[in-house]
Amino acid sequence: LFRESLLALHIQDQVEWFEQLDDITLRKQVYEALTPEEMADMLEELETEEQQSVMEEMEREKWISTLNEMASDDVVDYLEELEDDDVSTALQEMDDETAEKVQQIMEYDDETAGALMATEYIAIKTTDTVQQVMSRLRDEAPEAETIYYIYVIDQDGYLVGVVSLRDLITSDPSEVIEQVMSRRVVSVQTNQDQEDVARLIQKYDFLATPVVNDEHQLVGIITVDDIIDVIEDETTEDFGEMSAVRGATGTDITAWESTKKRAPWIIMLMFLGLITAEVIGYFEDTLQTIVILAAFIPLLMDAAGNTGTQSLAVMVRNIALGTFDKRNVWQVLRRELLTGIMIGAGSGVTIALLIILFYEQNYVIAAIVGISIMLTLSVSTLTGSIIPLIINRLKIDPAVASGPFITTLNDIFGLLIYFTIATSMIEYLM
Amino acid sequence: LFRESLLALHIQDQVEWFEQLDDITLRKQVYEALTPEEMADMLEELETEEQQSVMEEMEREKWISTLNEMASDDVVDYLEELEDDDVSTALQEMDDETAEKVQQIMEYDDETAGALMATEYIAIKTTDTVQQVMSRLRDEAPEAETIYYIYVIDQDGYLVGVVSLRDLITSDPSEVIEQVMSRRVVSVQTNQDQEDVARLIQKYDFLATPVVNDEHQLVGIITVDDIIDVIEDETTEDFGEMSAVRGATGTDITAWESTKKRAPWIIMLMFLGLITAEVIGYFEDTLQTIVILAAFIPLLMDAAGNTGTQSLAVMVRNIALGTFDKRNVWQVLRRELLTGIMIGAGSGVTIALLIILFYEQNYVIAAIVGISIMLTLSVSTLTGSIIPLIINRLKIDPAVASGPFITTLNDIFGLLIYFTIATSMIEYLM
Ligand SMILES: [Mg+2]
Ligand SMILES: [Mg+2]
Ligand SMILES: [Mg+2]
Ligand SMILES: [Mg+2]
Ligand SMILES: [Mg+2]
Ligand SMILES: [Mg+2]
Ligand SMILES: [Mg+2]
Ligand SMILES: [Mg+2]
Ligand SMILES: [Mg+2]
Ligand SMILES: [Mg+2]
Ligand SMILES: [Mg+2]
Ligand SMILES: [Mg+2]
Ligand SMILES: [Mg+2]
Repeated sequence: LFRESLLALHIQDQVEWFEQLDDITLRKQVYEALTPEEMADMLEELETEEQQSVMEEMEREKWISTLNEMASDDVVDYLEELEDDDVSTALQEMDDETAEKVQQIMEYDDETAGALMATEYIAIKTTDTVQQVMSRLRDEAPEAETIYYIYVIDQDGYLVGVVSLRDLITSDPSEVIEQVMSRRVVSVQTNQDQEDVARLIQKYDFLATPVVNDEHQLVGIITVDDIIDVIEDETTEDFGEMSAVRGATGTDITAWESTKKRAPWIIMLMFLGLITAEVIGYFEDTLQTIVILAAFIPLLMDAAGNTGTQSLAVMVRNIALGTFDKRNVWQVLRRELLTGIMIGAGSGVTIALLIILFYEQNYVIAAIVGISIMLTLSVSTLTGSIIPLIINRLKIDPAVASGPFITTLNDIFGLLIYFTIATSMIEYLM
Repeated sequence: LFRESLLALHIQDQVEWFEQLDDITLRKQVYEALTPEEMADMLEELETEEQQSVMEEMEREKWISTLNEMASDDVVDYLEELEDDDVSTALQEMDDETAEKVQQIMEYDDETAGALMATEYIAIKTTDTVQQVMSRLRDEAPEAETIYYIYVIDQDGYLVGVVSLRDLITSDPSEVIEQVMSRRVVSVQTNQDQEDVARLIQKYDFLATPVVNDEHQLVGIITVDDIIDVIEDETTEDFGEMSAVRGATGTDITAWESTKKRAPWIIMLMFLGLITAEVIGYFEDTLQTIVILAAFIPLLMDAAGNTGTQSLAVMVRNIALGTFDKRNVWQVLRRELLTGIMIGAGSGVTIALLIILFYEQNYVIAAIVGISIMLTLSVSTLTGSIIPLIINRLKIDPAVASGPFITTLNDIFGLLIYFTIATSMIEYLM
């Protein structure tokens, strides 16, 4: 009875309804009521934790037949969250054919096209007729990831073309695929980064892209819905790295998990911050003579941190969007430096005027702070833009190019500039 | 001759090739060689600047017929970049029907479903047969934004269902749509925010979504390729706002444009930073007595800024993903505060130990800095999480919830805490 009303919902709404079921007997009724195919659709979309409980709650045999019905990319996502032992026994009990597909996908590196693809694509031959293909589509529609793009392979499995369902229905049924297909088929390699795949789909407005192996044989397909999730994941990753909070952006983690991921960065940056204490300690005599110099430390440091963070955001975003090529990296660095000099000049003059106005016309302090701001901001934009570029080339932990890291670095530069200038002008200060 | 080799390319590759043509006579050859339809495909995909030059370079009549051939959403995007005068004369010269569609779309608010939609959808009746619809698809395929989802309307234009081309080709040609269609069609309203539309398409893995007016009549369609661009735009916006660099993240702007967008924030924040100078000035006596207190100002401020930025990133990301509902906002705030207390405790103890170790066992300084760090970091996570929430509710300029703003605010709190504690313990310091 509830079976029909459940299945009348969109699959995502079924999932939402299921996830709020607390009562285990109710959940077990769902497992019994649904066929493995219907259960597979739900399992594909469930949250990781829920997937775990389903494994424990479901009858073993039904759980295995459900796995057999899931799309290969979704089985992989699911199994990757389980213990190694559970994975190998599950693979043994699954259909040999499905298990083999899944194992192959699992061997690809994380975040590559291979790891992301599904193997449920429809491949046809150049010699097939439109009519033949249409009747295959009718049969295979329920299984395939998409039937809107159909890839054409030759007798050795090499990808040679693509036809869209749009092309097929507007073609004469007796025509052969060779005549109808487009040869300009854009594909990705199994080991290509998932971000490249996303850029490609975004550029060409594709609904799917074929994945080929080193020999250019068709081995899988990636659909646009999975690419949207990739874009979100990569964005979340970038946000996390930009603010040294990687892996702790979710709302569903506890304070303790959040602390474990975030505290190491804060404490590590505090060690780096000890250098700022050293710098100020080194200039203690200057400071002892003119205590009021301390008043402008936060202001100077914030301006440096802020411009550095701005440059960082520009770089992170453009690296993510792939808008950099060698040609324009220099141009962008040059622009950031120029921007730094101009913002620095504007800010320096402004603050100098304010100090003269509000701090009893202390021209020397005004000059020291103004010049320091100018120089520091020029340096800051460079730090903020060069460090992410280096990180991106050298494959170091990208959180080292985070806003906090760059801010601390710019603080050190800023303090050195400020106190060096102040010390050299100390005779005019007394 | 070059016409064929150009048209053999994917449209995006045609565009790339065209964009690197410097020679105006070559470009004019392209305008002459291509039909308005072919030119429309290219114009849809060109960069804004290039679209401008095309308008100036192309023969007026051909330019107008090209506009007539473009998808309505792309014409809108194009016209929105032109001068008001150019827009109104263009609309007058265009086909009345097309011009009217375009004008309607242009009336919707920016970043709403209405502004994003195209009007080139295929709508069918419940009484049509599958065969009738298939033959309509064959005719209208070249014009429609998508033929993979076909929306079903009743005699008054109300949206009542959806069929996919997948359903159509697997159905008996003589069946009526009423039997084949799904009634659980998810739609968006013209005035809904484009981010909501993106979340919806992402949740349901749709390739398109229908747009309805207040009366639930079908008025347009939004396709997944445009949604990917929306997701990117919104992400770029969030990055820009988080680092006070909104509108200046592109690589193609000049240093001067970049300065104009970024300098106001830096200078405004410097004014706010004057409060930090005031705070320190207020405690000048304390500082005069114990100059070494100044050495730990940057370290304390950076720790405060960093934890605040972490909390901010968590909030910005979750607001963007729409994962907050009223129920869990309090939970997240509580978690951020707890996280702040724990990171604060860990960092406070660490820094106190380090000071004892490196600064001649100065237990009092160690206690002052340690306790200040602990309190300040607890406050910082709250600032970093509450401010973006308030901004989001009150619709103030979101850059006010940027990392730089929150950092400066946390600096003020941190300095107040630090110097208050130091002043109250000054007798033990001398
Ligand atoms: Mg799926
Ligand atoms: Mg995967
Ligand atoms: Mg696109
Ligand atoms: Mg998939
Ligand atoms: Mg990545
Ligand atoms: Mg990335
Ligand atoms: Mg388009
Ligand atoms: Mg638009
Ligand atoms: Mg999705
Ligand atoms: Mg469009
Ligand atoms: Mg927006
Ligand atoms: Mg937004
Ligand atoms: Mg700072």
